[in-house]
Amino acid sequence: MLTQKRIELITLGEELLLGLTENTHLTFIGEHLGRHGVYLQRNITIPDDAETIGRQFAESWERSDVVVTTGGLGPTCDDRTRETIAEILGCELIFHSETEKTIKERFERFGRPVTPNNLRQAYYPEGAEVIANPNGTAPGIWFFRDGKILVMLPGPPNELQPMFVDSVIPRLVELGFLSAGEAYVQVKTAGIGESALETLLQPIFDRHEHLDVAYCAHAGQVDFRLSSQKGNIKKEDLEAIAVECRDLLEDDFLGMGRISMVKVISDYLRANELGLAVAESCTGGLVASCFTDLPGASKFFTGGIVCYGNASKVELLDVPECLLKQHGAVSAEAAVAMAAAVAERLDADYGLSLTGFAGPCGGNAENPVGTIFIGLHTPKGIWSKRINFPGSRSVVKHRAVNAALDWLRRVLIHHGGNGAY
Amino acid sequence: MLTQKRIELITLGEELLLGLTENTHLTFIGEHLGRHGVYLQRNITIPDDAETIGRQFAESWERSDVVVTTGGLGPTCDDRTRETIAEILGCELIFHSETEKTIKERFERFGRPVTPNNLRQAYYPEGAEVIANPNGTAPGIWFFRDGKILVMLPGPPNELQPMFVDSVIPRLVELGFLSAGEAYVQVKTAGIGESALETLLQPIFDRHEHLDVAYCAHAGQVDFRLSSQKGNIKKEDLEAIAVECRDLLEDDFLGMGRISMVKVISDYLRANELGLAVAESCTGGLVASCFTDLPGASKFFTGGIVCYGNASKVELLDVPECLLKQHGAVSAEAAVAMAAAVAERLDADYGLSLTGFAGPCGGNAENPVGTIFIGLHTPKGIWSKRINFPGSRSVVKHRAVNAALDWLRRVLIHHGGNGAY
Repeated sequence: MLTQKRIELITLGEELLLGLTENTHLTFIGEHLGRHGVYLQRNITIPDDAETIGRQFAESWERSDVVVTTGGLGPTCDDRTRETIAEILGCELIFHSETEKTIKERFERFGRPVTPNNLRQAYYPEGAEVIANPNGTAPGIWFFRDGKILVMLPGPPNELQPMFVDSVIPRLVELGFLSAGEAYVQVKTAGIGESALETLLQPIFDRHEHLDVAYCAHAGQVDFRLSSQKGNIKKEDLEAIAVECRDLLEDDFLGMGRISMVKVISDYLRANELGLAVAESCTGGLVASCFTDLPGASKFFTGGIVCYGNASKVELLDVPECLLKQHGAVSAEAAVAMAAAVAERLDADYGLSLTGFAGPCGGNAENPVGTIFIGLHTPKGIWSKRINFPGSRSVVKHRAVNAALDWLRRVLIHHGGNGAY
Repeated sequence: MLTQKRIELITLGEELLLGLTENTHLTFIGEHLGRHGVYLQRNITIPDDAETIGRQFAESWERSDVVVTTGGLGPTCDDRTRETIAEILGCELIFHSETEKTIKERFERFGRPVTPNNLRQAYYPEGAEVIANPNGTAPGIWFFRDGKILVMLPGPPNELQPMFVDSVIPRLVELGFLSAGEAYVQVKTAGIGESALETLLQPIFDRHEHLDVAYCAHAGQVDFRLSSQKGNIKKEDLEAIAVECRDLLEDDFLGMGRISMVKVISDYLRANELGLAVAESCTGGLVASCFTDLPGASKFFTGGIVCYGNASKVELLDVPECLLKQHGAVSAEAAVAMAAAVAERLDADYGLSLTGFAGPCGGNAENPVGTIFIGLHTPKGIWSKRINFPGSRSVVKHRAVNAALDWLRRVLIHHGGNGAY
């Protein structure tokens, strides 16, 4: 067990505080540090002005072993991070001619002129090392003093992320600030609420002193993490506890670690050489997009149809017009017809369909906004299911996708043993 | 101009620091406060342990007018926020029997048993008011003392968001802590880099003293916000400056405010009663999903086809098999055939197609990973375009979507005047 290093992340930018951009730096850096056994002590988001940066950096530097800053290294005039932090560290800013060269070459390659503000990115504090940035003009900064480390990274995620993984993590591991292994065991569940889950599992947890359990609920799924922050429980024992939980959870157990619902389904389909096709009305391509986010999706995903209007349901899926007239496009009958048709047209073993009222308009007395019909065509038969979700259009879309995927997952598990569902 | 109130947001939860959940609270709360004229002073994310919460809350309470906390109000055992903060404020925790009733009713409605840990959510600090939570069991807390306000909200976004908009914002406006109007003018651009943008617009900005300009780049688009934090420039003058920028930007101007690329395109198509259909290979439904995120998408979006494998390109779009064999599925020829076919099959005026290698596998010497062909069928002809994006599968997918949408937007602008593109 490592002595836990104290790491703080300072994310700079008014666009974060104004909610114009998501703080993906916290998600990315937090996850990667967590994997290597260190929980971020704190993340502070502040605007990009010199006084605030100075105050926050001084405080974080005092109470941490590592301070990582993101943003504020770009060429435009609201970026003063570099200057302010160098001042607090008592360093001069030095011009780095190699960085100047890199910047000029990069602009040349893209056929854009180098504006003078771009050359401000070639300055860095004396005594610091430059962290190469293969995807942008602003290099990062690595500064080591008195056993403490300052890492400064540029804001664009596609620049920051490879720099963090390829240059920062290995150096922190080498210095003994991070371990190589995973620090916690995560269990993912689906279809069970947070408090029911706690009530179910508490008897297992009660048998282990110094076991730390943290829950996290999101869009109808609950994850929990097992760790032992005092280090009394070994990794393999945490894993054994997780296996006990898995057995008790039965079908509500989704997977261990960071596996996603689509990955679980995809692994199952690929292992059994089965094909899946989807027909989406209200979710408008979101299910297809989830599956095609996986590399190699073409191995099991035969295609998708976004039949948003009635005409496309008739034209692309041969759903009979009279069926839509009699039962409505949001109906069990339509869902079943869509699932069967998409499986047939795209030569898939399983066909999944969604039709519903995502809101804010639409809906009727029988099927108000939030009503979703899911259709599932399988080699053993066709079913349909009706669910109602409260919430905004986006919430309804995402919960409908998760519910449909979870249903497919459960059916696949049961078909696997050749038993009827 | 209001005296700027100092507002800090404390987001609680190890799942945020471990990168398991995105900090959507910052995005949501920051945006809503920003619209009402107040920039968040700071956002601090910390783990859910009593000592850390106590330390951070005491510090934030001392230097702010309003402290908002999110999370830590749920039923499971790592939620100690309520107790810790009551202790720092020197208040007792009181049992709220009406909340108990609401919790019990809610569980009954969903047919789930009330576990004892759920009733912990019915406690709140003496002197505080309860903020109703229509979508969950944990109510929020509103506490006012000595001109300062503490707002505590539950963690799940679908519970927090309506509570913040319906209960918190109006009370803060009423107390004069927030203004009703918008505090800044935002201009969105597409297709121009951050430093080129600054170089283009700086002459305009130089003519205005006390004008604050902040840039924000994301996935190939750059936004900038004009404000006058000293209050010397009136709102209508900021708007006039934005109009000057718009005129100089020409086609690179996307829109004012928070309008999205898909909304710009949708507005145009709806106003001109035009239909759009999409055929997606590498982006796997993401374009369709973007359009169907808009309420009323069926007014212009006739449908989408996710033809991930070659078989689906042939089966659903009648792309000739010999064309795919001769040129490959990732080719200008395939993109053009897909765009034309989807427009025809789904009876749309415009057909947009994407085919490419999103990575990490696939690609060849001629068209390496990251190569995307976009096809565009219009009433005036069919074009195709080849672009290469560096980055991960997800980055390539998102940049390809943005590039395709921006191309469609530019073509629509030019067709609008009945001129050839």
